[in-house]
Amino acid sequence: MPVSPYHPPMTTPDLSAALNREQANEELFDLLRIPSVSADPTRTADMAATAEFLRAKLAGLGFTARIDPTAGHPVVYAERLNAPGKPTVLIYGHYDVQPEAPLEEWVTPPFEPTVRDGRIYARGSTDDKGQAYAHVKGVELLLTQGELPVNVKFLLEGEEEIGSPNLEPYLRDHAEELKADVIVISDGSRFAPDVPTITYGVRGLSYVEIHVQGANRDLHSGSYGGAAPNPINALAEIITRLKDDQGRVTIPGFYDGIDDLTDTERQMWADLPHDDAAFAASIGVPALPGEAGYTTLERLWGRPTLDVNGIWGGYQGEGSKTVIAAKAGAKVSMRLVPGQDPERITRLISEYVPTLAPAGTTAVVHPHHGGRPFKFDLNSPYNLAANRALKRVFGREAVFARTGGSIPIVAAFNDLLHAPVLFVDLGLNEDAPHSPNESFAVSDYHNGILTSAYLLQELGAPTTAE
Amino acid sequence: MPVSPYHPPMTTPDLSAALNREQANEELFDLLRIPSVSADPTRTADMAATAEFLRAKLAGLGFTARIDPTAGHPVVYAERLNAPGKPTVLIYGHYDVQPEAPLEEWVTPPFEPTVRDGRIYARGSTDDKGQAYAHVKGVELLLTQGELPVNVKFLLEGEEEIGSPNLEPYLRDHAEELKADVIVISDGSRFAPDVPTITYGVRGLSYVEIHVQGANRDLHSGSYGGAAPNPINALAEIITRLKDDQGRVTIPGFYDGIDDLTDTERQMWADLPHDDAAFAASIGVPALPGEAGYTTLERLWGRPTLDVNGIWGGYQGEGSKTVIAAKAGAKVSMRLVPGQDPERITRLISEYVPTLAPAGTTAVVHPHHGGRPFKFDLNSPYNLAANRALKRVFGREAVFARTGGSIPIVAAFNDLLHAPVLFVDLGLNEDAPHSPNESFAVSDYHNGILTSAYLLQELGAPTTAE
Repeated sequence: MPVSPYHPPMTTPDLSAALNREQANEELFDLLRIPSVSADPTRTADMAATAEFLRAKLAGLGFTARIDPTAGHPVVYAERLNAPGKPTVLIYGHYDVQPEAPLEEWVTPPFEPTVRDGRIYARGSTDDKGQAYAHVKGVELLLTQGELPVNVKFLLEGEEEIGSPNLEPYLRDHAEELKADVIVISDGSRFAPDVPTITYGVRGLSYVEIHVQGANRDLHSGSYGGAAPNPINALAEIITRLKDDQGRVTIPGFYDGIDDLTDTERQMWADLPHDDAAFAASIGVPALPGEAGYTTLERLWGRPTLDVNGIWGGYQGEGSKTVIAAKAGAKVSMRLVPGQDPERITRLISEYVPTLAPAGTTAVVHPHHGGRPFKFDLNSPYNLAANRALKRVFGREAVFARTGGSIPIVAAFNDLLHAPVLFVDLGLNEDAPHSPNESFAVSDYHNGILTSAYLLQELGAPTTAE
Repeated sequence: MPVSPYHPPMTTPDLSAALNREQANEELFDLLRIPSVSADPTRTADMAATAEFLRAKLAGLGFTARIDPTAGHPVVYAERLNAPGKPTVLIYGHYDVQPEAPLEEWVTPPFEPTVRDGRIYARGSTDDKGQAYAHVKGVELLLTQGELPVNVKFLLEGEEEIGSPNLEPYLRDHAEELKADVIVISDGSRFAPDVPTITYGVRGLSYVEIHVQGANRDLHSGSYGGAAPNPINALAEIITRLKDDQGRVTIPGFYDGIDDLTDTERQMWADLPHDDAAFAASIGVPALPGEAGYTTLERLWGRPTLDVNGIWGGYQGEGSKTVIAAKAGAKVSMRLVPGQDPERITRLISEYVPTLAPAGTTAVVHPHHGGRPFKFDLNSPYNLAANRALKRVFGREAVFARTGGSIPIVAAFNDLLHAPVLFVDLGLNEDAPHSPNESFAVSDYHNGILTSAYLLQELGAPTTAE
């Protein structure tokens, strides 16, 4: 059922005093110690252990909790439906994390959570174990005050970092059970440390591998150099030709059907406290290259991209090897915006890349996975409730932004559960998700717990009329 | 002293019957079993063992033989100077080999020599253990007939595959002892199986690494894609811009001062039995890209090149990782021709590459090593003696070619020992030196032994006046 906009306001206690922060930290550290890397086939046991950790915790909170197997890593599902007549809130999160490579760049081991300068350093600390667990603790915090003000369902998956290949079938099979009025997701970054943020859109993704073949074997670069095709040089040329000198992707049809940014959005983002120089400085670069004709925020949130995420070929070892490799490859991802269909984009690049292969080489594209872009109603009652919750924690209105990141299954929620999605971002970009030394501010973790608790209150019993 | 062109002819016995082929094979296999990879710092003990193997063998043949340490891997030096009044021949070879990577592509282990279809498969079988050891066995074969007809010195180094960083100082320190009338080198490929070949020129080499830096850490390609510089895309663009659409290297000054090919050379090579289609088929490619305006043989032997020998950056593991890497790198080698100075070329690319770095990235060049190009008198008495020796083995005149490969210390021999260099190539391109499944035809090994023996005879007592 929808939230009644006319529900009389109620006073709510300050939950901050009731939060046992040390206990909350210890529990998260235990969760972060399990190396739940979904892309690593040698860690399936760790994935299962992580799922059991979460199931046991939620069962301990009086939830009906279970682990549902899938064709890949399992799903943790839990529900506590003791608020008849109140909305049902489905909280989604993922317990899998990115690979930790390159390991040597971590100051402390990725799976030994360490607090430095008020930050919890560990793989998954912010993406998404920390943000997901903040909701678990938020619910626990509310339970210290009595029954939950809404019906709560947890859906915690283990394959988000590899494109959630099995979640859509899961949602389809459990559509009735998962029915909810709103789906809450915390898997992103606030605009700035002091700026609570509600995200109303995510970019989609098309992730592929390009493989280039030259000769039928590695060749001596002296005996053959000058006449034999070089697949590494060829791959470099293919990658270069995928963009023009204006930073636009050259794949034919790539931009067809894109929802242009509205004047409202461009103005709203132009008003945000963003500074290109400070942004560039925050990542240590002298300039911010990108598509001509758009601001940095527009490029990050509202425009598609193409980035090479990995490349390999020939001799990478110590010393020198004078060889012309037989083959080379690269991992390439394209971030997509509303109006672009991942499957269509993957087909377009799969058709285009072979035509770019220089003489003597062949190039093929192997699709990895994709995710649909998504844009959500700016003025839904859920967004307004989240704004009030955030205001109680941060003391100021939230800003409405989009994220450049992708949560592939958001579209599936929309299609299969027919429920709106509410993004409440608890992290920060400087958390460095997907990078060595990923971290999550201790204060953000604690504020996240409070935000979750207040949000459930606001969804169940708004403190102000709308 | 020079060979007297008026020395009366003498008859020489056919040494073929005297060659114990099985014994020759067993000895070479023992040599090939030692993994003497000079680029691998974990194999210094294997390098020393290989040097001792050769020293002991030559000592057993009555040579004064020793191992001379260098700042890197040791040199094996041996001499037998019992032919007063006869020329002194210095035979150069190298006992180090290329790294065996990628190991998984070897049909049989690289350091377990295996004979299949008349070929010896092992790393170093042709480059250069097999060709160098053919001379050791050639000398042994001659000794079965009596004293050697010339004074013979062996110089076997262990750092050719890493650019011979310590050989030049060694030659300088031992210039008097190494004095010779001619230096014989067998470290290359014949033009074709039935075409004995004398090589009168080698290309030079400039080998560098390009390192590109983007942000100060790996970034989430969703949160930053579209605004953050991508060092892999940048590296691809830099590599692409190092050549134009005519296959010409764009480094300013790269072609300055090159000795153009003479009409004689272009005609001589045009007359060789070369077929582009067959050459392309031999390496399994549909086309032979390269510098416009030159034939394949001209591009391979007489024109400079630029090839990427290795590239890396970002995530290369299983699955997908949506990351924008902080840095990327590539190993790049340029083959040089007479008129190009490796140090100058290395300086030119080191100055040029940084100017190609796209906005937001920085690119630097780290020099690896170089080698000077070299061209040698087509009509020297040594070339003519080699031609007679080869005719006795193959029954036909040799062709005079150049090689696209580099033997960096050839120029040093010329400068420091003031002796001409004679290349007698015993291998074939299909031996696949530097590649997985490197091999050396058993018949080429045995013919090499006979060629070496006849060559020493022809140098000591020509069978025909010139």
